[in-house]
Amino acid sequence: MRIGIIGTGNVGITIATKLVELGHQVKVGSRNSGNEKAVAFVAENGANASEGTFADAAAFGEVNFNCTKGGASLEALRMAQAKNLNNKVLIDVSNPLDSASGMPPSLLISNTNSLGEEIQKEFPAALVVKTLNTIWCGLMVNPRQLSESHTIFMCGNSDEAKSTTKKILKEFGWMDEEILDLGDITNARGTESYLPIWLRIYLTTKTGAFNIKIVQ
Amino acid sequence: MRIGIIGTGNVGITIATKLVELGHQVKVGSRNSGNEKAVAFVAENGANASEGTFADAAAFGEVNFNCTKGGASLEALRMAQAKNLNNKVLIDVSNPLDSASGMPPSLLISNTNSLGEEIQKEFPAALVVKTLNTIWCGLMVNPRQLSESHTIFMCGNSDEAKSTTKKILKEFGWMDEEILDLGDITNARGTESYLPIWLRIYLTTKTGAFNIKIVQ
Repeated sequence: MRIGIIGTGNVGITIATKLVELGHQVKVGSRNSGNEKAVAFVAENGANASEGTFADAAAFGEVNFNCTKGGASLEALRMAQAKNLNNKVLIDVSNPLDSASGMPPSLLISNTNSLGEEIQKEFPAALVVKTLNTIWCGLMVNPRQLSESHTIFMCGNSDEAKSTTKKILKEFGWMDEEILDLGDITNARGTESYLPIWLRIYLTTKTGAFNIKIVQ
Repeated sequence: MRIGIIGTGNVGITIATKLVELGHQVKVGSRNSGNEKAVAFVAENGANASEGTFADAAAFGEVNFNCTKGGASLEALRMAQAKNLNNKVLIDVSNPLDSASGMPPSLLISNTNSLGEEIQKEFPAALVVKTLNTIWCGLMVNPRQLSESHTIFMCGNSDEAKSTTKKILKEFGWMDEEILDLGDITNARGTESYLPIWLRIYLTTKTGAFNIKIVQ
């Protein structure tokens, strides 16, 4: 599959690298083409890896990932352009963290709204699926590194888009029973509001390589 | 130990009943003495159970629990009176849910502040410990009903108060390694912000008898 990655930070490059490993064709996009991390990604990942602008990546992708910092996501997606996002799955892994608020960061949007919803509102024809935003990027693409099973949340308005997303999650190593579909995109209020406790568990346990498991 | 329970809703009565079972003397407090649920609690729980106003319960307790609805907690604690709360552990299990916001409710305070902190600010001599607010009340006092171990968060400014709280949690059945001390009371921002995802897991799985386990 052709996949566009919007954002060339750690999250974007981690996901892009895994997708190439899995045999997909991946174009990573940054504000400008020729971004240093994007060029390094291409150099290390062979013929299925390419790079360009946000718009280049989104136009290339049959499925796109939003891997930008939450505070910059809407601007980056505007640069990617609606016409390149429309009628395609847009997997949103971002969190609206306020990087100016110190450690642990607070959220720029919270509780009565979410970045996932803001993205869906601004790009109504994109098929936004919020997932993977509740864990460290190393775990997103390698969930089997933990000692037991754990839970990943997913939400979005399109069942077909969630089905496509689930296939990709399973390629990453997630098991069917670990993927919890919470419903429509308003449930991003739940998964984004989880960040304040994630950050505090991280600061207490001193590792990002953790996740939560729902126990009944 | 003499324990005061501020609030006679399901949470307050569930905790009060368990504490009497464990051999403690418990006074539950409501807005007015003679509250129907409080009177029923006393009738069913023998000589170690008593009831009265918020102030009666707080004056009685060597340790007090805030089991009121979050939106009414500060008012209830004002009625309980600072002099009855000062220099005592105040275990705050409340959540600032906006009951007027529909299902799932949103939070009245979120992310950059917390009800736990507001309580500590208004009653600076009370030893506020936030805990148990991340689970259904039936599980608070009977954690061993789930199929495996799971995690309960605790935070507060006084190590001694947290130590007392931990002893009570262990009497309820929590294991040492399940109790995660996140640090000072500002960490209530994390545990209260967890409610939006808790509510959505609850609505998806259709049971409140669940909790999260941290998996590494």
